[in-house]
Amino acid sequence: MEKIKAAVVGYGNIGKYTVETLRVSPDFEIAGVVRRHGSENCPEELKDLNVVNDIKELGKVDVAILCTPTRKVEEYALPLLEMGINTVDSFDIHTGIADLRKSLGEAAVKHGAVAVISAGWDPGSDSVVRTMLEAIAPKGITYTNFGPGMSMGHTVAVKAVEGVKAALSMTIPTGTGVHRRMVYIEVEDGHDFDKVAAAIKNDPYFVHDETHVIETDDVNALIDMGHGVNLTRKGVSGQTHNQLFEFNMKINNPALTAQVMVCAARASFRQKSGCYTLIEIPVIDLLPGDRETWIRKLV
Amino acid sequence: MEKIKAAVVGYGNIGKYTVETLRVSPDFEIAGVVRRHGSENCPEELKDLNVVNDIKELGKVDVAILCTPTRKVEEYALPLLEMGINTVDSFDIHTGIADLRKSLGEAAVKHGAVAVISAGWDPGSDSVVRTMLEAIAPKGITYTNFGPGMSMGHTVAVKAVEGVKAALSMTIPTGTGVHRRMVYIEVEDGHDFDKVAAAIKNDPYFVHDETHVIETDDVNALIDMGHGVNLTRKGVSGQTHNQLFEFNMKINNPALTAQVMVCAARASFRQKSGCYTLIEIPVIDLLPGDRETWIRKLV
Repeated sequence: MEKIKAAVVGYGNIGKYTVETLRVSPDFEIAGVVRRHGSENCPEELKDLNVVNDIKELGKVDVAILCTPTRKVEEYALPLLEMGINTVDSFDIHTGIADLRKSLGEAAVKHGAVAVISAGWDPGSDSVVRTMLEAIAPKGITYTNFGPGMSMGHTVAVKAVEGVKAALSMTIPTGTGVHRRMVYIEVEDGHDFDKVAAAIKNDPYFVHDETHVIETDDVNALIDMGHGVNLTRKGVSGQTHNQLFEFNMKINNPALTAQVMVCAARASFRQKSGCYTLIEIPVIDLLPGDRETWIRKLV
Repeated sequence: MEKIKAAVVGYGNIGKYTVETLRVSPDFEIAGVVRRHGSENCPEELKDLNVVNDIKELGKVDVAILCTPTRKVEEYALPLLEMGINTVDSFDIHTGIADLRKSLGEAAVKHGAVAVISAGWDPGSDSVVRTMLEAIAPKGITYTNFGPGMSMGHTVAVKAVEGVKAALSMTIPTGTGVHRRMVYIEVEDGHDFDKVAAAIKNDPYFVHDETHVIETDDVNALIDMGHGVNLTRKGVSGQTHNQLFEFNMKINNPALTAQVMVCAARASFRQKSGCYTLIEIPVIDLLPGDRETWIRKLV
């Protein structure tokens, strides 16, 4: 069977884990890695791969896995879809998903390609669980509790506060979808910790949450990429109350994002032209190989 | 929008909960209930419905929800598919699913209908979780732990043992997919408890499991329909080990089965002709109403 030729676009954290994942995915081959500086200062672990700064320098590419910043996804995806290349991303701004789906969907249909968007773990695999639980207990409340784990968005927000030299914002779940923010900072010389802490607590990212700011000597020593989810639903199936459901994970964040994107890349070849979120794709399409074997094993 | 006309075929426990579920499902109307004795001795709660002993006595039926014994599913489903009526069942003999899918699939394609099989909670909604976890952590082990809850199959097996007047077999999870059997029995007059207990422990249903047999005065007083699942996977995403996942539920068993079947009945109208297990259907198809609204809410 011919392997799927995948390009990895962007080589930050998620790009790195995506290359690692593609190397152990039996139905894929790596067409190449696209990064801003091309092969200049190419990381050691990419030495055996084509590393370029324009995807057109690679040969045939079936699917591009976008490991770019989330706000750049549309800008990167549209020209790729116009070239007939499928795209996958882990776009994670929940309020922007429906618009992105429309925009990429139009381009995909026009050029006979498939885009799978928001294919990380949340949005992504968590969304599949949320959707199924909404269906099988249609009345009730779902809470998605995140962490403990590093919040990229909140960390960036802290770094923008005057007097902050280095920062880490951890998301701590306190249940019912409410989160505590534990913010670890290094303070720049000449700045007062108390004033910086007060500014962080007043930032729109933090003002509505229980926030603790803690001074530390070495923020970098605190960073690990573990994250967690506790997703609960208590609801009603038919007319029967008190149906209780819970989904938990403790995972390496970029590793799971990369694996979900590779699964979505595979699934993209099993959909008609258009743009899809993970909840619109049968879960069996995420798996390689023969469907009937999986049905016998997993159903 | 026109409502889906559903017939409930079979009126045991699951049939009862299916009628309850259809009554609160906004996009369905109940075409009628098909039971062996038709309207004879019709239960009070069905007085407002068409109750017949042949589905042909009902008007137009879009989908039949089969609440029959699992071994009768194929026999009931085939003639319905030949009439162009979609079918849904909760067929639960794991080793028979692939064959049933083939048999109903051929009939469904031939007559332009859709069958959704094994659409309960296991097989069913658990299968969706198992499949997704297999995809997002492709190396590793999944354990499905059932209970505490009543096992229908094991209870029937106990009742067949000589000297047993009434029985209940509870499935108790002890982890890593291993289960203890707690068997509660009433002994018939003239039989020795110890001998009956030994016979149960030697039955093929029990001989490989840790089994405890307990004599009791009133088995019926012990029966409740709660059940549980604890599904775990520890595995590798890409090349990153120790990814930990867990899905738990504590639910009313027939209520959840009924709700999943109603969701599958809805989804059947969104698939091409053929036979499907739940893992082959996008989870969004299980929900009523507008897709984009759900995408905004759930992804």
